[in-house]
Formats: sequence, structure tokens, C-alpha cells
Amino acid sequence: MPGRARHAIITLTTDFGLIDSYVAQMKGAILSQCRGAAIVDVTHLIPRHDVIAGSFALERALAAFPRGTIHVAVVDPGVGTSRKLLLASLAGQTVLCPDNGLITWAWHRFPSRVARELTWRPARSSATFHGRDVLAPVAARLANGTPARSVAGAVVQPVLLDLAPATADATAGRVIHVDVYGNVTTNVLAERVVGMRSVRVGRRTIPVHRTYGDVLTGKPLALIGSSGLLEIAVREASAADVLRLRVGDTVRLT
Amino acid sequence: MPGRARHAIITLTTDFGLIDSYVAQMKGAILSQCRGAAIVDVTHLIPRHDVIAGSFALERALAAFPRGTIHVAVVDPGVGTSRKLLLASLAGQTVLCPDNGLITWAWHRFPSRVARELTWRPARSSATFHGRDVLAPVAARLANGTPARSVAGAVVQPVLLDLAPATADATAGRVIHVDVYGNVTTNVLAERVVGMRSVRVGRRTIPVHRTYGDVLTGKPLALIGSSGLLEIAVREASAADVLRLRVGDTVRLT
Amino acid sequence: MPGRARHAIITLTTDFGLIDSYVAQMKGAILSQCRGAAIVDVTHLIPRHDVIAGSFALERALAAFPRGTIHVAVVDPGVGTSRKLLLASLAGQTVLCPDNGLITWAWHRFPSRVARELTWRPARSSATFHGRDVLAPVAARLANGTPARSVAGAVVQPVLLDLAPATADATAGRVIHVDVYGNVTTNVLAERVVGMRSVRVGRRTIPVHRTYGDVLTGKPLALIGSSGLLEIAVREASAADVLRLRVGDTVRLT
Repeated sequence: MPGRARHAIITLTTDFGLIDSYVAQMKGAILSQCRGAAIVDVTHLIPRHDVIAGSFALERALAAFPRGTIHVAVVDPGVGTSRKLLLASLAGQTVLCPDNGLITWAWHRFPSRVARELTWRPARSSATFHGRDVLAPVAARLANGTPARSVAGAVVQPVLLDLAPATADATAGRVIHVDVYGNVTTNVLAERVVGMRSVRVGRRTIPVHRTYGDVLTGKPLALIGSSGLLEIAVREASAADVLRLRVGDTVRLT
Repeated sequence: MPGRARHAIITLTTDFGLIDSYVAQMKGAILSQCRGAAIVDVTHLIPRHDVIAGSFALERALAAFPRGTIHVAVVDPGVGTSRKLLLASLAGQTVLCPDNGLITWAWHRFPSRVARELTWRPARSSATFHGRDVLAPVAARLANGTPARSVAGAVVQPVLLDLAPATADATAGRVIHVDVYGNVTTNVLAERVVGMRSVRVGRRTIPVHRTYGDVLTGKPLALIGSSGLLEIAVREASAADVLRLRVGDTVRLT
Repeated sequence: MPGRARHAIITLTTDFGLIDSYVAQMKGAILSQCRGAAIVDVTHLIPRHDVIAGSFALERALAAFPRGTIHVAVVDPGVGTSRKLLLASLAGQTVLCPDNGLITWAWHRFPSRVARELTWRPARSSATFHGRDVLAPVAARLANGTPARSVAGAVVQPVLLDLAPATADATAGRVIHVDVYGNVTTNVLAERVVGMRSVRVGRRTIPVHRTYGDVLTGKPLALIGSSGLLEIAVREASAADVLRLRVGDTVRLT
């Protein structure tokens, strides 16, 4: 008898794309066991195997959803190898994902965090689609009230990528994300930017403003973006293109 | 305590794309306050800042959904400037959007319309993402039963683009939309086409038919499309490509 | 009074794309009559008019969802012509689609199948959008409990494409799908592959393994994919590109 937990929220973040039916297969696995779940797509257009991009999207999902939400994230070049799966709790929400660094950015940004190895396995599973065969059924079980301890084992230290917030006295930050508009997000927290008048990108000095409309069309600015991080933008254009910035590049704090 | 209004419908029309998590952040803001809402994506692939394309999609959403639906539309080059936000009622449905012309096509097509300035603001808001920080929470509040008057102020005349239905005696119409198949929609209402045998596009005379199958593959036709408007199509090909038509071009009614 | 059947699941598989509002118009038609339906997108990026690709996606949806699910599939080059519409039952699920071969792969893969001509028509319908005007309202009615016999007529043999599983003694299979990663799926069932050590693609011998991680990066392998079919892959690359494979090509079983 499938569970009918009302109003459980389960989000999905993957690199499966939108052409194939893989995402729908995960949703079928969830709804087969938990009819009342509200399933929300975070994105399925993470570039294939780009764990950093997936890590940023997953953290954005945690920031946007309420306590109790279950987040399933699958960017998993190691599927079918010996990499572990994780069941992590952060700020009252749950994350299910491969233990390959995908949790890194959220791990640094949220309190009350604990990660366990996800040990539940189905009677039958494909060797190549653990998102559908393991993570989706576990998400449904948790939504139905199954306690985490019955599907997960010992506390583990998750694998973490080299992707952390800039420290409070850092003199430089790094680009961690470029969005579809070419807006460039760094690892510099809002509080580090207080009182700052400009930042430097290469030889260029870029003024700090409140919003895009504070500069003329085509002009660059730095601002606190909607993620609460220092962002570099160009009004009505792509900062990534204009300033030739990409993930990993340095922004100096002046 | 979040509301649990069952079966409220909230639609989203944006130019946010599907790569980033912006759309999911709006959904998180809605579901945080209204767990039972059914959120429907109209499209998030409006070309960036293309208010005309957004206006057409928004009207199509109003035409498709039942009374009581709440439509949130965000194509907002002016975010963070002094442009207003709107809360409009049309035919028993509600639209929340920036006051930049986005409402134009729906405004012309639906009766019982009234627009107010949306005055509600959150205690904290980013300067760049009013879709998530203002419009989504307002949509959730309205879905939970908050009356419009408690979040909106005076009646206003919304900003309207130069985008209106052709008049009953017009001798020409204009292209207002090109869909992904290259089918071309004009601003000419079905009733204007009754009894018409052909239309003219440049030097070409194009016969009026009922459906694509009425002409041979590769041949152009005019028909009443699923939007109730005069449409120009080419069977199993792109009319926009074959006839070199784009938004703003003229179709003569003969 | 719209129905409020709780937890009915309706899936959508189309070639409508994600740029226009066509998919949302179908959802509006469904939710107008059945507020509680959970609507799941299988994919809307079937290549335009590619009935084989649609047939494969539809079968994957049937495999993933529980009994009682209603699947609406629209890849319909013949809309507005005399092609029939189908209401089919397969393994306790319902499929609504044009009778143009779209049901083929599911028809071969599921038991307890019966197809009827869908005879219900609305009082008013566009000539070009039966997905919204016929199939969506029928899906909503079925979800609300309307019996199939009141919207469908005589049992019919559906139109079937030349797309069937390889027989148990076949010495070759055919490529039936290439996914977004370039993984290549054939019509060869898992049981035919038991004990097989390799397959041949052109002059190339490709070893059979359990999962991608069993070969080195860049190396080809054959495996049982998540669809339960013989798949050809290249670890962390596109088998379709590397091996120049596409739908209809032959894989020899050695």
C-alpha cells in the first residue's frame, strides 16, 4: 500500500537533461510509493558530471525550501563503482546524493549538519541508475515517515571538494558559478563586502553597487546577488563574456 | 504556520531559463508558505527581456486555466529600478508581474480587468530577485486567502505596449508571435477571418484552410490557430523560415 | 463542478518543446476539470514528429509508474487529418495518444493490452491542438472516475511501427534509441544477453560488462542498461559519436 504523506516536498537536482525520460523515471519511483509528494525540479541541466555546478545548485535549493524538505541530487560519474551514497541532514532538511563532493557547498553554508552512509538497497537494481533505483525509493520512504536510521548507517565525513567560502579576512575570492545570463557568483560572503567600494578583476576596477540599474547599460558592477554572495555583473550583458571570467578565476577585494 | 490551501493553482512565466535554480527558488518561496499549491510552469524560456513574447505566453496561460488561478510572470529588465509591480484581476484570475507592459496582450483579451499597484514588500529582499522575494510570497498569500486589498494599493492604468488586436475593419494584421515550429501567429481575431479565402504576405497569396492536412507537405496556408487568432503555417515546415516572417511583420487581409 | 480526485497521476510525453506555452495549456485543460491530479512531464523534447523516439519514451513512462496512471502522448504529424485517437490499457495503466504507431514499443513490452478508438469529442475544438482539446479533457475525466467505455468505442488493432524486441534466437539487434549522453539502446532483451561475452558493431568487438566503471575512461562496453535492454556505451563519452551508431543500425550478437 503506497504511502500518502500529504505535502512532503522532494526536490531533484541532476545532470540527466530534459530530452530523455530519466527524470520522469525517478518521479515514477517516488510517486509509486508516496502519492502525495510534491516533486520540484531544481535543475536537470547541470553540465554532465560537473559536480561543482551541482553542488552550487543543491545549496540554492536548501536555501529556498522549508524544514523537512528532502533533496535528491544526482551528478554521479562514479555510478556503479564503489563510491558511497549519503544521507545528510542540514538545517532540518535532508539530502540524498552520491558521496563525491556534491554536498560540499551546502555543507559549508548550513549548520546542524550530519552525514551518514546510505545503506538501503532495493532487492533489484540496475547497475547504472541509482537515482531511480536507490535514491528515489529512499526519498519516498523518508517522506512516508521511515526514520533515517533504518536506511542509513554510521556517521561519515563526506568527501568535500576544494570549494569553500572565502575567509573573513581574505584579500581575494574565487568564481564558483556563472549563471545563464553570464552573471558571475563568487565565494565571498555578503558580510565581507560591507563598506567595500570596489573589487578588482584582472586590471579592471569594478564599483560595488546595490543593483543592476545603478550603472549604465553595458557597464560592469559588483553587488550582493540573490544568493547572498558577491556577484560580478554587467548591466544587460554577460559579465562572464565581457570580463572573460569563469569558475575558478580570482576576484581581488580592495 | 504555513497555509495548506488545497488545490490552489499558481503558474510561472519567466525568462529565467532552465539551467539555473532560479525557478526552483521561486517554488521554494511559494511552497514554504502554501504547501498545497499546484505550481505549473508556463515557460521559463522567454527570450531574455523579451516582454512581447512574455506577454503572449501570459495571455495563453490565462486562456487555459480556470477562475481563481494566480499567474506570476517575470520578464523584468528593470528589476531594482523604480518600475512598479502589479496585481491585476482579469476574468476572475489574478496576475502578478512587473508593470512594464508584460500584461498588455492579456489586458486586451480579457474582460473584468482591474490593475492595482502591488505594495507589499518583505522585511528583507534582495535587490535583484523580486520574483522570489516579492511576487512568489504574495502569490502564496493570495492562495492562502489573503485579500488582494491587503497587499495592493490604488487602481492604476498599467503600462501597455504597442500590441493590440487588429480592429474589426483592419486591412492588415501584424505578426505577434513565432512558435518553436515556426508557426506564425498574428493579432487578427478569428471573427475577422470569417469568409476570407486568402491573405497576402509580401507578394505571396496564401489560402485560408481549416488545418495543416488541407495542403500538401511544404505548402503554406493560413488558418485559425489554437489561440483563436489568424496563423500562417507551412505544413511540416517552418513558415517563419520559408516566408521570412518575424514579429512585427505585416499580413494583409484580402 | 470540477472533480477533485486526489493523487491521480497523469503523465505527458510530447514534441511540443519547452519554449511555447502548449504544454501548460494541456495542464490547464486537465486541472480545470481535475484539480487534484499530479501531472508529470515525461519529456516535451521528442524531436518533432519523431514517432519512434516518442514510442520509446512512452514505454519508459509505463515502466516507471504505478497501476492506474494515465499517460497522454502527443507526437502527431497527422493532427487534423483522419487518423484515429486511441485509448489503450496496458498492465493496468491507460494510454491516450494518436493512432500513428506511437504506442508500438509499449504494446510489445506490456501484457493485458487492449486498445479502443477514443470517440469522445468536445463541443468545440481547434483543428490543430487535439492534445489540449481532446486528450487532456479525457485524461481529466478518466482521473475523475469516468469509465473508459463512455469515451471510447470498439476495440481496434493499433497501428504499429516496425519496432519490436529482437526474438529469443536473433543473431542481431537494432538500435532503437540514443540518449542525450550518446548511450545507445537496442531492441535486445536482457535475457538474450545472458552468458554473452561480447557483441559486434561493424568490425568492432565490444565486451559485455556490468557497468561503466568496469572499463577504462574512453573505452566501449556493452551492458544491460536501466531499461532492461542491451545498451552500447563508452565510459564518459558518447558511444553514438565514437562508434557512429544511430537508430536503425545493427548490433550483432556473437
